[in-house]
Amino acid sequence: MFVDRLIESVKAKKTPVVVGLDPRIEMIPDFIKEEAFRRKGNGVEGIAEAMYLFNKGIIDAVYDLIPAVKIQVAFYEAYGIEGFKAFFRTAEYAKSLGLIVIADVKRGDIQDVAKMYSKAYLQNPLFDAITVNPYMGEDSMVPYLEDVEKFGKGIFVLVKTSNRSSKDVQDIETKKGGYVYQEVAKMISRLSKVIVGKYGYSSIGAVVGATYPFEAKILREEMPRCYFLVPGYGAQGATAEDVVNCFDEEGYGAIINSSRGVIYAYRSDFWKEAYSEYEYGQAAREEVILMTGMINNALVKRKYIAS
Amino acid sequence: MFVDRLIESVKAKKTPVVVGLDPRIEMIPDFIKEEAFRRKGNGVEGIAEAMYLFNKGIIDAVYDLIPAVKIQVAFYEAYGIEGFKAFFRTAEYAKSLGLIVIADVKRGDIQDVAKMYSKAYLQNPLFDAITVNPYMGEDSMVPYLEDVEKFGKGIFVLVKTSNRSSKDVQDIETKKGGYVYQEVAKMISRLSKVIVGKYGYSSIGAVVGATYPFEAKILREEMPRCYFLVPGYGAQGATAEDVVNCFDEEGYGAIINSSRGVIYAYRSDFWKEAYSEYEYGQAAREEVILMTGMINNALVKRKYIAS
Repeated sequence: MFVDRLIESVKAKKTPVVVGLDPRIEMIPDFIKEEAFRRKGNGVEGIAEAMYLFNKGIIDAVYDLIPAVKIQVAFYEAYGIEGFKAFFRTAEYAKSLGLIVIADVKRGDIQDVAKMYSKAYLQNPLFDAITVNPYMGEDSMVPYLEDVEKFGKGIFVLVKTSNRSSKDVQDIETKKGGYVYQEVAKMISRLSKVIVGKYGYSSIGAVVGATYPFEAKILREEMPRCYFLVPGYGAQGATAEDVVNCFDEEGYGAIINSSRGVIYAYRSDFWKEAYSEYEYGQAAREEVILMTGMINNALVKRKYIAS
Repeated sequence: MFVDRLIESVKAKKTPVVVGLDPRIEMIPDFIKEEAFRRKGNGVEGIAEAMYLFNKGIIDAVYDLIPAVKIQVAFYEAYGIEGFKAFFRTAEYAKSLGLIVIADVKRGDIQDVAKMYSKAYLQNPLFDAITVNPYMGEDSMVPYLEDVEKFGKGIFVLVKTSNRSSKDVQDIETKKGGYVYQEVAKMISRLSKVIVGKYGYSSIGAVVGATYPFEAKILREEMPRCYFLVPGYGAQGATAEDVVNCFDEEGYGAIINSSRGVIYAYRSDFWKEAYSEYEYGQAAREEVILMTGMINNALVKRKYIAS
């Protein structure tokens, strides 16, 4: 079962940190681009090769530290066929080193179409879980639930997202009191009952932005069985203190993603004196260790885990 | 401007009918599968080839009748790289015959990621418009708006979808009175003001399900500048009478999609006596003509157009 594998990997690696592989060509070190363009030309094939080589360097540097990677498909989809090839190669490489692979695809459509998305990702052995958009309601999620059960996969449904405008729809006040994101949470919580593992968590999880600690506290109670995938740490502005509300009292229940903050650590004010672009993997590794320390400290302070 | 091109094509072809190219391998005529598998083997390449050949036959049969095709990406995405190739080839073939191509991708993500989706589709000359999911709010739509303006493209934002469970989130009653879909409609209506063409419509449109005529009437008033992309006709149960509320009083303002009802017409009770599988294109053509007649009759009855 997905959620049990996830929790066991979080326990083994002693961190809830997930690294987001969102390669932007303009942020990739020149030496990688030069190598990639030399091999494949400086068109879209070269760009895709550079993205893959960059990801491989990050994965090599952090795979022993973290339970999972999250791959945001849009960064690859932007480059069409060649981009998708880099997406699949990245997933394959991460899996080969034992990482859990979350495809951040945020798909959502009517039942017949959702079946096709489920075939694309949950039925694909390269991926362990996907993110899903709930706007079209429960029947748009049923095909995923079937494959979650059948193939031991997971989904994380968008509930309260990390961006500023998440308020526009998610924070609409409802007639019965509360907000739209709470109604979505209730729907997901109900669905999560059917697939619960040995630690009391479900393979039906939720996306809850690190940037909304107040809402996270409410949602942690509304969705007791849902593991949270938490974006927004670091580059989007959230801190270790902000994410504590996403966890349960044993320090589980959430994985915290950082993309830009980790993979471009070598360019950050904090690390750029210490690491050159050639050491971007090492900088990412240091950032994962630092982020783990900060989150674990925040959990200790809240007495969720022992020091 | 996208919306002007769309309206002019609707005027020229005298129909609001759009054909959805959603190839399901099990529904494709055997003679096409045999040809495709002979060329490319019966693995994923053969399946993708069969999907493309099937689509080509439909496009050849109906391109002179209709303003646009809608291509649902999930049916292709399910087959990975080869599926995407068939998706792009289909778009290219439809464009080569002068059709407007709507990529039904329903993407939605934070601003930086939406930029990548916009690069993938709106910056791609093969596509004229995409569908977009509004759950993440206004900032998740800004990158599309920029490219709509810059490249003369369009978007259709999900407001009230055709599926039964669309009620779960979209019909949540709001504190201020009304429903979530109306709040989404207000947001889209506001955004639609910035890109208005010579017929008073915007290139920022909305998806409104044919299966909800009551809601369509409300939404037609809430979003006066938004062209509606209307799914749910035919196989999903909606009739010509049901879609009339999506139109304005001149008989414009909506394009009506049918996928299964048209492309698998040769298998339907209505047409299967008249057409063999070899004539699936001809059956699709007859169905488009019939559907056009029924919708235009319904518009005449409502006195939106002259008989």
